[in-house]
Order: sequence, then C-alpha cells, then structure tokens
Amino acid sequence: MGSRWSTGRIEAFSDGVFAIAITLLVLDIGIPASSFDDLWRGIAHEWPSYLAYVTSFVTIGGLWMVHHGIFRALQYADARVMRLNLLLLMAVSFLPFPTGLMAQAIRDTSAERAAVVFYGGTLLVISILLRVLLDAIVRRPDLLDPGVSTEKIREVRTVATPNIGFYAAVIVLSVLVPKVAVFGYLVIAIVAVWRARGDESPQARPAEAA
Amino acid sequence: MGSRWSTGRIEAFSDGVFAIAITLLVLDIGIPASSFDDLWRGIAHEWPSYLAYVTSFVTIGGLWMVHHGIFRALQYADARVMRLNLLLLMAVSFLPFPTGLMAQAIRDTSAERAAVVFYGGTLLVISILLRVLLDAIVRRPDLLDPGVSTEKIREVRTVATPNIGFYAAVIVLSVLVPKVAVFGYLVIAIVAVWRARGDESPQARPAEAA
Amino acid sequence: MGSRWSTGRIEAFSDGVFAIAITLLVLDIGIPASSFDDLWRGIAHEWPSYLAYVTSFVTIGGLWMVHHGIFRALQYADARVMRLNLLLLMAVSFLPFPTGLMAQAIRDTSAERAAVVFYGGTLLVISILLRVLLDAIVRRPDLLDPGVSTEKIREVRTVATPNIGFYAAVIVLSVLVPKVAVFGYLVIAIVAVWRARGDESPQARPAEAA
Amino acid sequence: MGSRWSTGRIEAFSDGVFAIAITLLVLDIGIPASSFDDLWRGIAHEWPSYLAYVTSFVTIGGLWMVHHGIFRALQYADARVMRLNLLLLMAVSFLPFPTGLMAQAIRDTSAERAAVVFYGGTLLVISILLRVLLDAIVRRPDLLDPGVSTEKIREVRTVATPNIGFYAAVIVLSVLVPKVAVFGYLVIAIVAVWRARGDESPQARPAEAA
Repeated sequence: MGSRWSTGRIEAFSDGVFAIAITLLVLDIGIPASSFDDLWRGIAHEWPSYLAYVTSFVTIGGLWMVHHGIFRALQYADARVMRLNLLLLMAVSFLPFPTGLMAQAIRDTSAERAAVVFYGGTLLVISILLRVLLDAIVRRPDLLDPGVSTEKIREVRTVATPNIGFYAAVIVLSVLVPKVAVFGYLVIAIVAVWRARGDESPQARPAEAA
Repeated sequence: MGSRWSTGRIEAFSDGVFAIAITLLVLDIGIPASSFDDLWRGIAHEWPSYLAYVTSFVTIGGLWMVHHGIFRALQYADARVMRLNLLLLMAVSFLPFPTGLMAQAIRDTSAERAAVVFYGGTLLVISILLRVLLDAIVRRPDLLDPGVSTEKIREVRTVATPNIGFYAAVIVLSVLVPKVAVFGYLVIAIVAVWRARGDESPQARPAEAA
Repeated sequence: MGSRWSTGRIEAFSDGVFAIAITLLVLDIGIPASSFDDLWRGIAHEWPSYLAYVTSFVTIGGLWMVHHGIFRALQYADARVMRLNLLLLMAVSFLPFPTGLMAQAIRDTSAERAAVVFYGGTLLVISILLRVLLDAIVRRPDLLDPGVSTEKIREVRTVATPNIGFYAAVIVLSVLVPKVAVFGYLVIAIVAVWRARGDESPQARPAEAA
Repeated sequence: MGSRWSTGRIEAFSDGVFAIAITLLVLDIGIPASSFDDLWRGIAHEWPSYLAYVTSFVTIGGLWMVHHGIFRALQYADARVMRLNLLLLMAVSFLPFPTGLMAQAIRDTSAERAAVVFYGGTLLVISILLRVLLDAIVRRPDLLDPGVSTEKIREVRTVATPNIGFYAAVIVLSVLVPKVAVFGYLVIAIVAVWRARGDESPQARPAEAA
C-alpha cells in the first residue's frame, strides 16, 4: 500500500513469459514413428496440432500486443497491478496445456467436446483477467506516464472487452459443433491482433520522424 | 576481490531464469490418453497438478518481486552477491522437478509424504539462500544505489525472513498431513506476494507523476 | 491505422522467441537406453540429430542477425510490420518440429524424402515472410530511424532475397537426394550468417571509437 | 566487411540463450513411477542427476559471468565476433544433451566412461571457442568501449585459458576413473565462478558510490 514498482523490469519479465509460452507450444506437435511409412499422410494427419498451434500463437501474440500497449502507458505499477499481472501471466503460461489437450482430442468423439470447451474456458478466464487489470489501471490515473490520459487506457479496454462475450459465445457453440468452435477461437485471435493499437500516434510527436 | 558488476545484465539474466522456470511448470501437466473416455473426469482428476502449478507459480512470482526490489536498490554487485545470486537461481530453476514430483505423488499413499517434504525442503533452501543474499548486501552499503539506505534492504529482509520459519513449520506439518501442507505452501506464497513492497514510495519522488 | 509501436519491446520479445526456439532444438536430441551397451557407437549413430541441430541453429542465428539489422534501422513499427513480424516469429518457432522430424526420419528410406522436403518447405516459408516484411518496411520510410535511408533496408533485402530461390532449388534437390539436400540447407544458412551486415558502418560515426 | 554491430541486442540474445540453456537442465531430472514405493530411496538414487545438474549449472553460470565481462568491455562487435559468439552459444545450448546423457549413464558400467568423456569433450570445445573469441577481440582494440584498454581483455583471457588444459587433463582422468572426473568438472566450474572478475573496479569510478 503506497509503494510502487517502476515498469521496466515488469515488462522484461512479462515479455519473457509471453515469449516462452508462445515458443513452448511447438513441443506439443509430434508425429509417432508408426506414421513414418507414409510420412506425408502422417504430416497431414496432424492438422489439429497445427490449428491449435496457430490459434494459441496468434492469441498469445495479440495478448502481448495489448500488454505492450498497456505497460507503455504506465510509469508505475502498484501492488494490485502487480498481482493482477501475475495472475494474467499464470493463465497465459497455462495455455500450452489445454492447447496440447485440444490438439490430441480433436478427432476423438468422446473427448473432443470437453477439450474444446476447456480450451475456450481458459481463454475466457484470460480475457476476464485482462479486463480486471484494465479496470484496476483506469482507477489509478496517477500510475500513468505523464502525457498519457486515462482515455488511452479506456480505449484499450473498449477494444479488449468484447472478447469476453465472444469467448462465451464460442464456448456455447463448442458444445454443439466443437470443430467449428476452434476456428471461432482463431477468428477472435486474428481480430484481436488486427484491432491492436500502437502505443503512439504519429500526429502526437511529428517532429521525431526524418 | 575489489571488482564489481553493474546490475543491468544480472537483472536481465535473472529475469530470464525466473521467467523460464515459471513457464516450464506447465510441462508437468498432462492427461494420459487413457482418460479420454471421460475427459471431464480426467481433467478434474489432475487437480494435484493444478495445485502444484499454482503453488510454484505464485512462489516464483513472489520471489521475482522480492528479487526485483533487491536489485533495483543495488548499483553494483560484488563477487559474493554474484555467487549467492547464482546459487539462488540454481535452487529456483530446480523447483520444476519437486513440483512435478509432488503433483505425481500426491495421491500415492506411500510416496505422498516424501514428495511433499522434498518440495518443502526445496522451498526452505530457497528462503535460506534469499536470507543469506540479503545479509551479504546489508554488509555492503557501498553497493547500493545512491539515495537508497541500508534501511530499505533491512526492511526487505524483515519481510522475507519469517518464511524460513513458516516453511520449517509446514514441513513438520507435511509429515503428519501431506495434503494439507501443500495448501500451507500456497498460503505462504500468496502472503509473500501480498507483502512484497515496491521499489519506490510515491512520497519520495513526488515530482515525476503527472 | 495511423498508430504505431516503438521498437524496443518488439526487439525484446522477438529476441526472446529467437533465443528460446534456438535453445529448444537440443531437446530433440536423445539416445535410447538400448544404445548404452556401446555408447560411442550410439553417440555416433545420432549424427542426423547433430546435423539437424547445427543446420537449424545456424539458420535461426542468421535470421536473428538479419532481424537485428532490420529493427535497429526502425524507429517505429506500424500495424502491418507488427503482424508480419508475428507471422515470421510463428514460422521460426515452428522450426523445432520439422527439425526433429528430419533428424528422426533421415535414415528411414520411406520417410526421409518427405521429412527433408517438409523441413525445406518451412525454411522457404520463412524466407518468403522475411521478404514480405522487408517489402512492407521499404514502403514506409517514415518508420525508419532518422539518419537511416531506405537504401539500407533495400540492401538487406537484396542480401536476403536470393535465399528464396536457393531454398526452392534445394527442395527440388531433396526429392532426388534427400541426404545431400540437408547439407544444402546448412550451406545456405552459413552463407546467410557470412553475408549478414552490421547495423552501423564505422565510417559513419568515427568519432565514438577510442 | 567493415560493418559492425552495437552490442546491446547481442547481450540480450546471448543472455536469453544462457538463461534458457541453464533452466532446461532441470528437464533431464525425473523419477520413474516404479520408484514411488520407496520415494526417499528413489530421490537419493537420482544423485547423478543432481551432480550433473549442479555441474552444468555452475559451468554455464561461470561462462555467463565471463561473457558478461567481455561484452561490457565491447562497444561494437564485428562480423567475426558475431560468428564466434554464435558458435559459442551453439556449444552452450548443446550442453543439456551430454549433461542428461552423463546423468543417465553414470551407473552403467559399460556406458559411463563414454558419457563422461563426451561431456568433458563438449566442455573442452566450449573453452576453446571462448579462447578463440577472446583472441579475435584482442586483435580489434577499436571495438572496445572508450576507456577500456586491451589489457582488460588480455586479463580475462589469462583467467579463462587454463581451463582448456584443465578440461583436457580431466578428460584423461575420466578414462581411468569416470566418477571422480565428474567432480573434476565441477571443481573447474566452481573455480571459474570464483575467479570471474567484475566489469568495473571501484577505484576507477569512485565518485558514483554514495
């Protein structure tokens, strides 16, 4: 209470966790030696692994872009922001597990539904934690970099929040048609990357460019 | 002897080790294909893995926050601090092993007790190494950043030290009721995160905020 | 649209992904306990793993050097550069999978050809993504660091582009003689490291050196 | 030729590789479920894994300290330094493989000797690459930070070079008594950490300390 952290090393640590979680995803992809007789078929057969890899990669990439934007706007973090950031990183680091599970289960009629719902549930939790983190920052304008207004964070929040609803909707969809739902998660991730905004607008500091 | 290191790259290296150790924890979680017939049950059955994951994640997260606070206060590290920091990182990097062991053993009556004690022993060693590192810094005020007083490090030490006793107590408890002890480790970790203090107090440098 | 990102944290995140992907390669190397009766023979027998390790390590190392050069020249990234960089990192992070597959399959007559072509295909995709990223930067000279001319990026592009043709050629070769093609990939990687240019020329800033 | 790299991002990338290689070592430690009947015995039985872990951890930690010292002294890297650094990182990243092999083989009479020699050979190659890197830097005083003399790098070289002989000697020893040789590698690593020198001497810049 009252104390605060400068953000440089929080960014370094968070970047590390994002970069590692995103790179560990590949460890879930593998082809059993029994498929070596017809390897092209074996490679093609692994499509659920590639789909899960791309979906989680784009999801984490989009989260990292939003995270980047948030922490660029902050000069300090207070204890609440630190804890919420740690919770968010805990959920992101967890993602390789449901990703691998979904890739493994996607062709197994009995397991597919549970795996896809569980994966979506993890994404839902991540998007809720992101919203809670943004709420905590909006309430503490004194943590912001001088020159950054609360508007900027509100904007990030406005862009990030609908994902909560999208994930909830796709989870419902995944109960009915699990395979289609995976593409739903992928579309949400791509849209999130597409809508991510830079941390500076060129109009604001026009003098620097050559 | 007499030589010293600037702390920037020590922080980068330590952050890397903390971030990787914390992210590798997820690799210990997995569900055997034999559980795919009833995957929800299989997912629920893995609760010891989730408990171990959360406990170790929060523990390493809290250690990182304390580490962050310590090295922000330092301008230089001497050879002793370098070596003790390396020892501390060696113990932290080791943690995924007892974490995975505990998760695996927690439902096995014969193995559970040993695994939980071994896990606690690793945490005890980490908390002792942290204390020894803090002692080494308190004795070298010339390493501190100008403007930081030895008081600041003494304060961090006062907050961190009781964990040694807590871990010792929970290890004793784990001989009697191993499952309860795991929650004990989790509570210690949460309290450590809760009590972690920022590296700056807003009163000290009020001019910077907007 | 219109917004932009400063490059510091993009470099940190990308460096993390490159460093992790390059270090995970070793996890694909292993010797089965059944080879322990004659371990020297077992170690020698793993030569495809070492060859695949070295080839992918040098490839990623060369990519990192080019990436380093590109982002040193940039002051900002726009949304397109961010997305293309994320795509490039996704392909680089994927590389440990075809690397391990190739190492495993290289002595299996039926699987070898497919594995080597698949590996080369991944490298071809990476080299095309790099070209597309460079094209996107050439068209936005306002993103460059003041003092860096578009010429610099055009030069990097001129050095990097021929790889697309080389990879295509070696993929054709790999259909005929897969084992030879692996050395082709290695040669391309070594040449790429050899031709990589620093981000500064000593003539430009002669005053700084002692 | 003639071009050069600023060292900031080389340090970041190298730190990443060192940090990941050092943290991946723990993945080689594991206890088979068959040892769960008497887990304390199973934990004790894994002593070769702990010994290999500690030896490689201290070795990489010491290398990182020397690397830190070298690159702090450099303002720029030329193409040769970049390539030699990449080779050094390739050898360091490889270390988890012989480490795991040694841990597995250490109680297997037929495999032990080969595994310990192979491990020592990797360390010998690393120490030779370090020497070659230092030679390349000594010949290019214009790459050094202003204020750093070639003497400083010569000193680092004088400290690092004897390891080549030590490793060669312990490899010979390991042919005779493999188990003893492992402790030899550990002693070399501890001495390297002990002798590592900081990048600044307090006499040189006495004005900064409080």
